[in-house]
Amino acid sequence: MKDISKRILTAIIMIIIVVAAIQWLPPLYFALFLYLVISGTVWELVQMVKPASRSFLLIFFNGAVISVSFVWSKLDLLPAVVFTLISTGIFMLFSIRKEEKLSVFVKDFGLHLTAYFYLYVPLFFIYKLKLADPFHLFFLILVILVGDSAALFIGSLLGKHQAYPVASPNKTIEGVVAAVLFAGLAGVVGGLLFPINASLIQTGLAGAVMGLLSQISDPIESLFKRACKKKDSGTLLPGHGGLLDRLDSYIFCAPVLFYLIEILWRS
Amino acid sequence: MKDISKRILTAIIMIIIVVAAIQWLPPLYFALFLYLVISGTVWELVQMVKPASRSFLLIFFNGAVISVSFVWSKLDLLPAVVFTLISTGIFMLFSIRKEEKLSVFVKDFGLHLTAYFYLYVPLFFIYKLKLADPFHLFFLILVILVGDSAALFIGSLLGKHQAYPVASPNKTIEGVVAAVLFAGLAGVVGGLLFPINASLIQTGLAGAVMGLLSQISDPIESLFKRACKKKDSGTLLPGHGGLLDRLDSYIFCAPVLFYLIEILWRS
Repeated sequence: MKDISKRILTAIIMIIIVVAAIQWLPPLYFALFLYLVISGTVWELVQMVKPASRSFLLIFFNGAVISVSFVWSKLDLLPAVVFTLISTGIFMLFSIRKEEKLSVFVKDFGLHLTAYFYLYVPLFFIYKLKLADPFHLFFLILVILVGDSAALFIGSLLGKHQAYPVASPNKTIEGVVAAVLFAGLAGVVGGLLFPINASLIQTGLAGAVMGLLSQISDPIESLFKRACKKKDSGTLLPGHGGLLDRLDSYIFCAPVLFYLIEILWRS
Repeated sequence: MKDISKRILTAIIMIIIVVAAIQWLPPLYFALFLYLVISGTVWELVQMVKPASRSFLLIFFNGAVISVSFVWSKLDLLPAVVFTLISTGIFMLFSIRKEEKLSVFVKDFGLHLTAYFYLYVPLFFIYKLKLADPFHLFFLILVILVGDSAALFIGSLLGKHQAYPVASPNKTIEGVVAAVLFAGLAGVVGGLLFPINASLIQTGLAGAVMGLLSQISDPIESLFKRACKKKDSGTLLPGHGGLLDRLDSYIFCAPVLFYLIEILWRS
């Protein structure tokens, strides 16, 4: 019982902070806020995989370079990528001075690229969504929230067929179907609620796609956790686990919603 | 003796193929040629790290998506990156159906990102260089060839201080200095030889930077080889090892020369 009230309190505080940040923060401050939140998820991921890592400063710095490329029109993503590659390479070259460290080099190099390209790049699409229209971001939060809840409740009520036995034993095919249907429904509701320049069919379909993608994005984060034998990605959010646990669905959903809007809603 | 003649013969054939490709292949065919060569280096890297990999098709396909983003102006790098992330995630989700595979997931995921971002992305700058001016590419080949040879000969003649004891025991600080000086000199010669729109000071400095970067790029590939306990990356080029052994310097040099030209020579 105490756990549930803690969970609800954390949820209320999170909602207030997130809504305030999306609604009122000027773009540059929002970008900084987002950068800090993503860096928190990166911290969690690296802590899980390699608790003794000494390269957090390098990762946060390169994450900042990638983030700046989303914010500052004069820096393209491509030179930012080149910079992160070379700086990481040089770091590896000078930090691996003992033979025993060789055995973890390939995994370590991949972990850096994972931080840059699996977290900073896709999650910074949240900035692009908010910049185009804050309601696009509220729309995304709504459909993911509804989809994930539907998957959880209906999955545990009716679920019989495991969808990802290794990654997420609790996720069922029935839950995935429920996520698609209810996120689609939430998409229609979102289209009615928010002043979005798209038909209800378009917002409903976008919601359904997000519901499906969320059910794919989330278990991939679970693969990282299970590979490292962790239940939660962190403990920052009492009752909710870590930041990464809350953001995992956005890794795939944020960029795809951005392109869906770019290609379909705008045409 | 037989080994040296094999080495020279291979070198002559390589030079003919490369010069012909750069000089005469139309852009689209050159892009295809480059894609195949990079895919060969990717094959070597993945074979080294994970000989039993079943995801070559996925990697080559995503490599093609990234390559197309360099060639076709309608596909930006960013959506190509998002696509490779999601397809790789889904592949992982459905290929890891047994608990024992979990332990290699983090490394495996990182290996895919390494193929995309450490090989396809930087090496496709070779296409951008050739597209702007084939002579930029000849210039790059010249300074890298001269710099690497200088590092090898002068390093083994005068070298006393190891530069990277673990990554490349044979590389010495004296060799690195020689690479910078001779590549700089080759840069001046390149500026005289080729019709390049830059002063000899500019081409000399560019050569020196390439000489230094090549001596950083090359030992990072060696880290991969040594981590996997391999001497050569492959056996495709008799007497020269694998494709990756020949291309390792270009991983850092090609993108940096491209931006040097963009920013300094053009202004």
